[in-house]
Order: sequence, then C-alpha cells, then structure tokens
Amino acid sequence: MSNANPGPNAPAPLLVVGSVALDTVETSTDRREEILGGAACFSCCAASFFSRSRLVGVVGSDFPAAHEEFLRSRGIDLAGLERATGRTFRWAGRYAADFNTRTTLDTQLNVFETFKPKLPSAWTETPFVFLANIDPVLQLGVLTQVRRPRFSACDTMNFWIGGKRADLLAVLERVDMLLLNDEEARQLSAQSSLPAAAKAISAMGPKAVVIKRGDAGALLFQGGDVFAAPAFPLDNVVDPTGAGDSFAGGFMGYLAATGDTSPDGVRSALVAGTVLASFCVEDFSLDRFRSLDAAAIRARIAAFADLLRFRPPKI
Amino acid sequence: MSNANPGPNAPAPLLVVGSVALDTVETSTDRREEILGGAACFSCCAASFFSRSRLVGVVGSDFPAAHEEFLRSRGIDLAGLERATGRTFRWAGRYAADFNTRTTLDTQLNVFETFKPKLPSAWTETPFVFLANIDPVLQLGVLTQVRRPRFSACDTMNFWIGGKRADLLAVLERVDMLLLNDEEARQLSAQSSLPAAAKAISAMGPKAVVIKRGDAGALLFQGGDVFAAPAFPLDNVVDPTGAGDSFAGGFMGYLAATGDTSPDGVRSALVAGTVLASFCVEDFSLDRFRSLDAAAIRARIAAFADLLRFRPPKI
Repeated sequence: MSNANPGPNAPAPLLVVGSVALDTVETSTDRREEILGGAACFSCCAASFFSRSRLVGVVGSDFPAAHEEFLRSRGIDLAGLERATGRTFRWAGRYAADFNTRTTLDTQLNVFETFKPKLPSAWTETPFVFLANIDPVLQLGVLTQVRRPRFSACDTMNFWIGGKRADLLAVLERVDMLLLNDEEARQLSAQSSLPAAAKAISAMGPKAVVIKRGDAGALLFQGGDVFAAPAFPLDNVVDPTGAGDSFAGGFMGYLAATGDTSPDGVRSALVAGTVLASFCVEDFSLDRFRSLDAAAIRARIAAFADLLRFRPPKI
Repeated sequence: MSNANPGPNAPAPLLVVGSVALDTVETSTDRREEILGGAACFSCCAASFFSRSRLVGVVGSDFPAAHEEFLRSRGIDLAGLERATGRTFRWAGRYAADFNTRTTLDTQLNVFETFKPKLPSAWTETPFVFLANIDPVLQLGVLTQVRRPRFSACDTMNFWIGGKRADLLAVLERVDMLLLNDEEARQLSAQSSLPAAAKAISAMGPKAVVIKRGDAGALLFQGGDVFAAPAFPLDNVVDPTGAGDSFAGGFMGYLAATGDTSPDGVRSALVAGTVLASFCVEDFSLDRFRSLDAAAIRARIAAFADLLRFRPPKI
C-alpha cells in the first residue's frame, strides 16, 4: 500500500485520544507489575503497523522515558502527550483462567482525573480521529478542536451510558462510527436483539456501529450492510488487556492508511483490527507489538481468510 | 442437487436417535403449551430440507396423531418411533428477554425414562447417523446396532460429561464428529482455550469437533483445519428451543444428501445447519419449518455468504 509507510515527515493521519496507564495484571498463571498500558497506547501501537498516529493523553512525572521511546519508535507522535505533576494513571486487574471474566483490583486515576485533552494547533486538521473510552464530555471537547475530520470513531462503556447519557448522545451525533460491546449496545439502545440495537444506535448518529463480543468476534452494521467477523481462535492467550483498543487501533489505522471509508473498505479495516487484536493478547502489555512485523500480519490475514472460507451449500 | 429429492421409496440416508417431546415454552412476550418439540423432531425436520431421515424415539399414548402426520409429511420415516404405554416426555422452560439464559421449569421424562432405542432391522445399514443428546449408554447401544456407518455424529451435555464420562468416552471412540457447546468442551477436555479443547477432544476419537456458541456461532475443528461460522444475526428471535438440534439436523441432512465428508464438504454442511437453525428460532416449536421452502433457504445462504464477505487487508 503506497501510503502505509509514509516518510518520517509526512503528517500523521490518525489522531487518538485516550488513557496512558501503568497496569498490574494477574492471570491464572502469571503476574506483571506496572507495565505499559492504556487505551491510547494500545490503539496507537496497533495502528502503527498501517499508519502514523498522534497521541493525545496525559502521564505523570513518574512515567518511564523508555515507554515514550518505544511509542516514538512505532511512529507515534507524542506532541499531544501532556506531562502533568503527579503520578500516572494506574490500573490493576485479575483474569479468570478462561479469560472471560476480569476483576478490577485497583484504579488510581491520578493525573488522569483532571485531564482536559488539548490538541497541538498543528493537529486540528487530522483527517481520522479515534476517541477511546473516556468521559464523553472530554470526547466532545476533542471533536470541537478538530476541523471536520474525514472519519471519526469513538468507544464508550456502561458507566457513561448510564451516567452521562446526554453527553454521550451529543458525541454520537458527531461521529461516523461507534464501537461498543454487546451489553453496552443493549443498554444504550434498550433493544435485546443486536441487529435491532445497532439500528437504534445508528439512528442516534453513527452510520457505522461495531458490536464487539470478545472472543466471539465482532458485528459491523453499516445501514443494511452487515459483516460478521469471528475473533481469531488462539491456542494460548496470555493477557487480553488492550485487545479491544488494539482492535480499534488496527481498524482506524488501516482506514487512515487506505482512506477507503466505503462499506467494503470499512469491512477490510475491521479485519485488520481483528488481526491486530489477536496479536495483542499473545503477550503482556504491548510486548507482542515489539517484535511483530508485516510478514506475520500478512500470514495471519491469510489464516483469517481461510477460517471463513466455505462453498455455499446447494439446494 | 440430484440426491436431495430422492423418490418416495429411496432409502433414507440419515438415522436420528433422540427425544420426542411436548414442550411448554415461555418467552418475555409469549407462551405456548404442549407444542411439538424434542431433539429428534427438530433434527429430522431440519434435515428434511436436504435428505430423508429415519427417526428412532419414543412417544406415549397421548402423542397427537397430527404431530406424526406432520413429521411424515416432511419425509421422515417413523418406523423406529416406539409407542409406549404412558405419557410422552414433557419439558417446560422460560427464556430471559435477551434469550441468553433459559430456566427449566419442569421435566417429566415419562416414557422417555425407560427408553431403549431399538432399530428396525432394515435400518441397520443407514450410512449417516446422528445421536442427539441422550444417555451415552443408549448412544452406544445404537452404534452397536448399525453396521459401520459412513459418518456418525453425536451431541452431549454437561450432565453426561460429569456423570457418565466412561460411557461417553466409549461413544467418542466410535463417532466421526462431536457437537457440544463451549462450556461442555472445556468441561470434557479440562482445557480453557477452545482450540486446545478441540484438539484434546479429537484425541478421544472424533476427527471433527463442532463447538456451538449459540448466537455467537460455531467453530469447526477438523485436525488443523478450522472453520468459524457466525450465527445468522436475526432482528426478531421468537423461541430458541431446538436451535442446536436444527443446526445438527441441517448439518447431518446436508452431509447425507451430498455424501461429501471431506473437510470442505463438512464446512458446507455446517453452513446448511447454521441456516436451518436461523429459521428454527423464528417461530415456536417446528412451526417455521411448516412454511419454509428451498427458495427461502437459498436466499438465506446467499445472505450468509454476504455476511462473511471481505477483501483481505493489504500490508
């Protein structure tokens, strides 16, 4: 793809706003303390295999320089990363053996508590925008700072759907795509069937609705056009943290790289997101992305295509 | 397909053993009493759109003649349906509004409690066999009565995995395919990842393992070959009862009709099962099958193919 690897001075086409965190993660067999995490990091890093990106977020004075260096090495522009006085956002959680349930053990918002995203003036014309899961008031603040992006997407969660519905609805009026999980889709729409939920959510603004179902894959609704993508079945999941953000980042990075926001273009981008998410969970933190290369991504895209291949039954 | 509509005297290629029931079903909006149900009925009826079948089961003296007539009208041979003195098996259940949880309100085994499947002597050479979810001792009894079928499959449940493991393992040594849900796969294999579970189960005998995940679709493992099929997203589910049995019946009916048990042939058959299951849940009991025709099935197969269509991302 001609624009997948632009020169080092080319403007980054994707803006990502979200958390930068230090995570402590326990699985049934292992534990890691204060490893690099946060939605913005996972999203930008997954996107980086397709496109350069701009990260808007905040860290405290304790944020390790090595993490910043790693993010920069992935072509991520950190001019929008605020360094505040205080401690970086911390999250700690534990996964059950089957990874289907996660218990949050600790959340310390720290500098994230008073975070007000402020875009560098040179970034206001970024054509692709991803608003990771943060307070919809902040998401709206970002949307007022960017000039008519070509394609914007946002994530959200049950906490905002229940507690800041009016603000979330104001965001939804302005974005092209919403990503959320099945329970959140039911909560937001008050519909029990997912196609009915997607239709109701689309009527709130976003022309594309992505319903994420964890290891059961994702459904993409674009008006009457529906795409069902399974998750890539993996023998050995190490840490699911950041899977959804890597999915969104790979998705938006691919859209930004191709510029193709047609329904078929968005389907391809969702597959790119699915594949990046499948790599993310193979190691803790963003570690799998440190060694990942285009050849491995290409091979998994081929394996994914084989997973869905069938000859239609004849009757 | 040349052998999908054989003459009325052609031997039925599919044998199905399982329950015949009168169900009482409550959903959040409706309720039906003593409607036709049971795994063998759903399976044979779904199969009937591809192939003739032979039903082995038992009913009581109260079983309505109209139900038998309906089953016969679908090309199902009832020579193996035993009429016992007593009442037919009854099941009653209630679904939550999102259909993801089901509560069993009542189970009356009645004549099913002492059921010993006995095959008519003319049926011992049936080439395709589906053992629906019954006691593995009875499944094994059926397998000893059929002479080397070309392809046999069985279903099971947590109750037998926990309580009659040795008998179930004896069945698994003899069947070509096992269908079960994700929790059952984890329970049987003691593996948390589904690919690892399928590999462990395959080592117990069946060369094909189908993991059913309800509205999240199904995974088919045939050695290293993996197929992931989403469920067909439906706006309006009426009654999920029998979905899994219709899936298995459509699957086995298609296999029996084509005779193609190659990995690609089994993939196509799984799609046939997925499509038949999607029709089953659109009405109570087997009622959707009463009006279903080949044109509607053909249209949904095309819609299913469109659901999975994508251009692989380029990197």
